[in-house]
Amino acid sequence: MTIATVPRIKFLKEPTCPAWVELALNNLDEILLDHSHCEKKAAGVALNMMFRYPAATELIKQLTAIAKEELEHFELVNQWLERKNIPLAPLNAPPYGGKLRKLIRGQEPERLLDSLLISALIEARSHERLGLIGEHCPEPELATFYRGLMASEARHYGAYWVLATTYYDVEKVNTRLDELAIAESEILSNLHPEPRIHS
Amino acid sequence: MTIATVPRIKFLKEPTCPAWVELALNNLDEILLDHSHCEKKAAGVALNMMFRYPAATELIKQLTAIAKEELEHFELVNQWLERKNIPLAPLNAPPYGGKLRKLIRGQEPERLLDSLLISALIEARSHERLGLIGEHCPEPELATFYRGLMASEARHYGAYWVLATTYYDVEKVNTRLDELAIAESEILSNLHPEPRIHS
Repeated sequence: MTIATVPRIKFLKEPTCPAWVELALNNLDEILLDHSHCEKKAAGVALNMMFRYPAATELIKQLTAIAKEELEHFELVNQWLERKNIPLAPLNAPPYGGKLRKLIRGQEPERLLDSLLISALIEARSHERLGLIGEHCPEPELATFYRGLMASEARHYGAYWVLATTYYDVEKVNTRLDELAIAESEILSNLHPEPRIHS
Repeated sequence: MTIATVPRIKFLKEPTCPAWVELALNNLDEILLDHSHCEKKAAGVALNMMFRYPAATELIKQLTAIAKEELEHFELVNQWLERKNIPLAPLNAPPYGGKLRKLIRGQEPERLLDSLLISALIEARSHERLGLIGEHCPEPELATFYRGLMASEARHYGAYWVLATTYYDVEKVNTRLDELAIAESEILSNLHPEPRIHS
């Protein structure tokens, strides 16, 4: 299979390698199950931040909307799993999320800034990769589903960046985003052998 | 103020004492803020169970719906806070939730059973108390809001009980529910002096 082009997504330093697209398309069932876990984890991350910053009105407002939407996507992906007779099951995570979260500095105000930007990068990468599945998936209905999801995922990474600029100077935000984006692409430069959204 | 009657709610051993109603109505702003935290916590509890039991299809399905609804209620309560110029803020929790969670046995299969039934009881008590606010609140619009919420909260405690009977024998469920319900009423028998939904 030849993947001609991988569109560039704002925030990301390096586009996804064609080898990931092949790995994903050759293992769509496992990718769907992993995607389900990703949506649940994304809702969990948003909710955890809502607990950590209970007085941050704008953050609470935006993250509530994001958590709700992630749960809706989780439901939709689970409907696909049911339709394909893929049972819900635990699945070991690739190193991506853990490695990124280690880059979050422990003290405030850095902790919130890094948390928001790591979430922005994860959402941007998900947006890119769900889009790649939507573009190349051989099952037309599933492809349509992924293209639909991709559109609303796009709002999330923008929302996390806007939140960062709500609480921090825009120059500080973009400098740190640049550093974290380099690390994010570096983490993905060795393709994780298991088929995952963030292999 | 005289509170004539407190309606009895299924599952609960003892109805809420009239002193709680007075405490709540005399401190509506603080109750609204506490209610916001309760909705967020309820979403968090549902999501935590979804992480702990990733292969339990029916549980995942029901809890996703509950978590989404709790987040919707959280948004609605926060809109009331905004309207009343009450800023979001942390608030220390009454001992209720912590004491109940200590009753959850640590080993499976008891852990899941107890977790579901404790959630059922908390939802049943919330349903009762939101209903009392809806009935006695002197602000008509806020009273209407609480009566509306109460209706959908009622579904939650039923859903938790049905989930328990999905995974456990109904007699075992009801025996344990009886034990936990006695403890729940006992915990509330000394009114916590701070105005909270679960004082």
